[in-house]
Amino acid sequence: MTYDPQNIFGRILRGELPCHRVHEDETALAMLDIFPQSRGHLLVIPKAPSRNLLDADPETLGAVMPLVQRLARAVLKATGADGIRLAQFNEAPAGQTVFHLHFHLIPVYEGVELGRHGGGKADDGELAELATAISRALD
Amino acid sequence: MTYDPQNIFGRILRGELPCHRVHEDETALAMLDIFPQSRGHLLVIPKAPSRNLLDADPETLGAVMPLVQRLARAVLKATGADGIRLAQFNEAPAGQTVFHLHFHLIPVYEGVELGRHGGGKADDGELAELATAISRALD
Repeated sequence: MTYDPQNIFGRILRGELPCHRVHEDETALAMLDIFPQSRGHLLVIPKAPSRNLLDADPETLGAVMPLVQRLARAVLKATGADGIRLAQFNEAPAGQTVFHLHFHLIPVYEGVELGRHGGGKADDGELAELATAISRALD
Repeated sequence: MTYDPQNIFGRILRGELPCHRVHEDETALAMLDIFPQSRGHLLVIPKAPSRNLLDADPETLGAVMPLVQRLARAVLKATGADGIRLAQFNEAPAGQTVFHLHFHLIPVYEGVELGRHGGGKADDGELAELATAISRALD
């Protein structure tokens, strides 16, 4: 199992493709998923190249989790969701489709079923507004 | 939202209830889920008290993730699973049922659907064997 730098998140990290950016620092990029399972579905992508959790640098993992926490709080504040799920998939049988380590933060709204990932593309205008709102809610 | 030390994981951490322990150090306890979604479903429970990700000490989060990684590798090695999911739920609408921070590591086997969490209790003898096997596979 190797890392292919041509994966879509690698290309976004290098600025070769656009994204709905919520936050970026030396450790990671956070952006909205354009095929969200719910409103505010966020992806947190460590900058250091690794295929997934299994081959990641432990230091990167240690550095990214406090940011994941801050982003989870910001998503809840900006969306008013009732809860939030953290998910991370390793290898295709587990649901991984892009082979650069990424963490999903999926807000849950009481009484609303989560959508299927990749079920539908979100509206770009709505994503842009939401990215700004979550970014402003970040402490 | 507050932390209630009488939650079941708090009681297990204090040794008041038994568990199928895979690993324990100063940061966390890892044990097999007795209502597994798949063979080798592991729970990683930081010792520091927090309700979930939202109120956790960032230092605890930073320390536990490298252990989660080592445990994920050990589960794959011991079970021969084809992939593994990391999941962590915050608040009841998101699926949280025990209000002490915990991470699920759920092995996925090609062609086998994941079970519903809490769908059925695993055999204690099988869990004991599996706990030993995963513990031995830990680097």
